[in-house]
Amino acid sequence: MPVLSPELRRLIESGPLAHLSTVGADGSPQVSVIWLGLDGDDVVTAHMRRDQLKLRNIDRDPRVVLSFEAPREPGVLMAHHAVLRARATIEGPSEDAWELLNRLAKLYMAPDAEFPAPRGPGYIVRYAVERVGGVGPWAGG
Amino acid sequence: MPVLSPELRRLIESGPLAHLSTVGADGSPQVSVIWLGLDGDDVVTAHMRRDQLKLRNIDRDPRVVLSFEAPREPGVLMAHHAVLRARATIEGPSEDAWELLNRLAKLYMAPDAEFPAPRGPGYIVRYAVERVGGVGPWAGG
Repeated sequence: MPVLSPELRRLIESGPLAHLSTVGADGSPQVSVIWLGLDGDDVVTAHMRRDQLKLRNIDRDPRVVLSFEAPREPGVLMAHHAVLRARATIEGPSEDAWELLNRLAKLYMAPDAEFPAPRGPGYIVRYAVERVGGVGPWAGG
Repeated sequence: MPVLSPELRRLIESGPLAHLSTVGADGSPQVSVIWLGLDGDDVVTAHMRRDQLKLRNIDRDPRVVLSFEAPREPGVLMAHHAVLRARATIEGPSEDAWELLNRLAKLYMAPDAEFPAPRGPGYIVRYAVERVGGVGPWAGG
């Protein structure tokens, strides 16, 4: 499992929206755009409901892709972005999910934001990254 | 097939990066981040090579998702974005692909940019949009 490079960690910590691709029961792709975080060396997302399509897809097949963009810079041929192939594991229920969402709200909403859903048990998805692709200093790992 | 709303057309014409999700031969998701355009009422992308993984995946299974973001606005819970489920059709080879890439280079690179690959035959992928989701004025169609 590749270790996340400092550049990739910095990109994740800058608050890019993650496009989470899973495969549905009918074999077609399904995409949700979600918040993304780090928990130590791991890439994680958090979810307050267990019955979301994306979590049911992960139950069936844990092979997912997380793709997200670096800030756009004019003039470049292909904007920098990361494409992570990973195996997803669902953890919980616990209040860790709400705590993570409340921490990410400060990044994705506003520095003083509180996550607006009631505090309660939720689910963390942890991603074992198998390949880092895309375009940028993190790609090719 | 839903007609693209004016808001969705405007978003596409603003030059968002498209995350194209296909399904690979092993049944796992595959994602490429690419340029996106309109050809009349159709969503299209262009590709100079036929042997790209994404085109081979479309040959096998034309069910794809295109997801892309609207400009970020601070303070909102979930940033606006579009998720299009579609059936993809590959057209070509023809010089239309290079012409489209050269037109999109003005949007994605710089107003005076020329697409840097040599002019030559390529492939247009045309997307029959089946469902428009995400978060924003275009979602739910």
